[in-house]
Amino acid sequence: MKKLINNPSDVVNEQLLGLAAAHPELHLSLAPRYVCRKDIPQGKVAVVSGGGSGHDPLHCGYVGFGMLDGACPGEIFTSPTPDQMYECAKHVDRGAGVLFIVKNYTGDVLNFETSAELCKMDGIQVQCILIDDDVAVKGGGHTSGRRGVGLTVLAEKIVGAAAQAGYSLGACADLCRRINQNGRSMGVALSSCIIPEAGETTFLLDNDEIELGIGIHGEQGVERRCMASVDILVELMVEHIFSDPEYVRVAREMNSASGEWEDVQLVSTPFSRGESFIVLVNGMGGTPPGELYGVYRKFAELCDEKGVSIKRNLVGTYISSLEMQGCSITMLRADDEMVRLWDARAVTPGLCFPSCDDVTSCGTSNAD
Amino acid sequence: MKKLINNPSDVVNEQLLGLAAAHPELHLSLAPRYVCRKDIPQGKVAVVSGGGSGHDPLHCGYVGFGMLDGACPGEIFTSPTPDQMYECAKHVDRGAGVLFIVKNYTGDVLNFETSAELCKMDGIQVQCILIDDDVAVKGGGHTSGRRGVGLTVLAEKIVGAAAQAGYSLGACADLCRRINQNGRSMGVALSSCIIPEAGETTFLLDNDEIELGIGIHGEQGVERRCMASVDILVELMVEHIFSDPEYVRVAREMNSASGEWEDVQLVSTPFSRGESFIVLVNGMGGTPPGELYGVYRKFAELCDEKGVSIKRNLVGTYISSLEMQGCSITMLRADDEMVRLWDARAVTPGLCFPSCDDVTSCGTSNAD
Repeated sequence: MKKLINNPSDVVNEQLLGLAAAHPELHLSLAPRYVCRKDIPQGKVAVVSGGGSGHDPLHCGYVGFGMLDGACPGEIFTSPTPDQMYECAKHVDRGAGVLFIVKNYTGDVLNFETSAELCKMDGIQVQCILIDDDVAVKGGGHTSGRRGVGLTVLAEKIVGAAAQAGYSLGACADLCRRINQNGRSMGVALSSCIIPEAGETTFLLDNDEIELGIGIHGEQGVERRCMASVDILVELMVEHIFSDPEYVRVAREMNSASGEWEDVQLVSTPFSRGESFIVLVNGMGGTPPGELYGVYRKFAELCDEKGVSIKRNLVGTYISSLEMQGCSITMLRADDEMVRLWDARAVTPGLCFPSCDDVTSCGTSNAD
Repeated sequence: MKKLINNPSDVVNEQLLGLAAAHPELHLSLAPRYVCRKDIPQGKVAVVSGGGSGHDPLHCGYVGFGMLDGACPGEIFTSPTPDQMYECAKHVDRGAGVLFIVKNYTGDVLNFETSAELCKMDGIQVQCILIDDDVAVKGGGHTSGRRGVGLTVLAEKIVGAAAQAGYSLGACADLCRRINQNGRSMGVALSSCIIPEAGETTFLLDNDEIELGIGIHGEQGVERRCMASVDILVELMVEHIFSDPEYVRVAREMNSASGEWEDVQLVSTPFSRGESFIVLVNGMGGTPPGELYGVYRKFAELCDEKGVSIKRNLVGTYISSLEMQGCSITMLRADDEMVRLWDARAVTPGLCFPSCDDVTSCGTSNAD
């Protein structure tokens, strides 16, 4: 294991100290552990996310103007604890409530629910919205449902912009739910990764093998198969996304009026010709930027063939799995409101959107 | 070799097609090969760079508002040809001349000089400024001098902002020369990388070995040694930078008045207590964002011990060596003018700086 680290047990805290040193506009608490903005305006809905570490820049790298108000990092690939979310929520609440954006993993879901209960007892209004966009996991009783992957980045950007623009807690939650219903992702791993405290690779791949449909922790994918050209790999990913049938999940949400938990049935309909998208081509941590543009080339070509329009794109390492080589593709069927919020200004360590007011052509506004 | 590519000989063109598809605000020419802005205002000095490919986002990813007007990518780790720079310069010249920012490699230097001659014959005013910041190369007659590495990114940002702000060609050249005189870099490789057309690693490292003082192509470093903790590796890099003595190079520059080549002697004085810096902690392509913040933590601590002040920082993958694991540290002794230009708005695929006018605390403005 060759990594730029000291003692494996100190990795998360040391990297957070580096983030805070580089970005003094952020507040870092180490016990309990969370990162938040220092300059949250009164009356603004606070947007908070969190999850296991090792996915940088997600989540702590997205704390800042126009995205997250707080993020709670667990140990590597391990859920944060309820006290982290609870203390973070108390710290960032400005009287308008807190939206938790939760990736669908058993530990994350349970712990965010527990912290929502704690917040409720303190009189802080909270809503939890799930992200479960990974089409590699087919529906069925044997899993806890689809994993939350790349769509989380898009949700944090768009919902963060909505909160910054003054949306209410209910409106932010509705928007986030709509994003989840309209998003799908698929990934491929060319290599595994090494959790520092484990010291060895999470899974083994031969020199000519890849894992298709990987999650962000090296969970089992759809298929282990031979390495192939980028064109073939992108075709496989895109086929999985477009052939994904109607997907129905039951999300447990806290009713904002009654404060009681209720099961909400949410349906995702398949993508089809004529629709418009915001897309993310994401690197898994060990893949260099150039290769991701190679992926984008084929992906954009396939979208064109399928008659769908890419309104906005993001290409880079935005939700990683330590040093894993590989990539994922996320597609969000986007309405005008989402595109408008996508274009809004954001200033965070991991993602920066200039508003386009005074620039003729703007790198983040790439089609219309 | 597992990479997200098709035929190795198509890698550069296919990745550029992806970049252009994702960023329609850029113009891509494939024969001869260059990328440039579509919206360069009349009367603005054009800033152009280029070099071998495989260092993304450098250089093509820095074409856009407030940075480069054009970039000329060669094959992987191979200099572009004079016709590329010449055609690019003709395309981006708006009557105020063209500044070539040239990393100090024999091929790049020769080819940029040849293209400057071609431009001169066409009546286009050109200046070439060299970047040679790699302290791993000690002075001496047996080399062509120091390599241009991480400082190139800072030069492209700052000089790009100056050109955008209306600086003359001479003023842009003076500023770029001053940046080069005040910048130093040092890198470390944890792994080698594979040039697609070669199909095997450029050099071999054992499981417990690293190469200290590496360039961006896997050139020989200062020392091959045992892997160590990030703290020790950062200490070694910082020691090399701070103990670097006065460095004198002779740069060949085209005199802007006479159009004749002349040798200009440039001196870099060592860094010392009380000085202020813009710094870059850079990933080599295969190192995930989290580890770079681990590097920054120790680096900031050492700067504090040495009594120097970090005015601005940039942490991420900005000048890479394909999928190499490792990092580099660049320090630029920065005056107020450089810091002001650093903070200016930039909108490129690889680097985005919002101006800070309407944000209370801004992620890119991190100390004062």
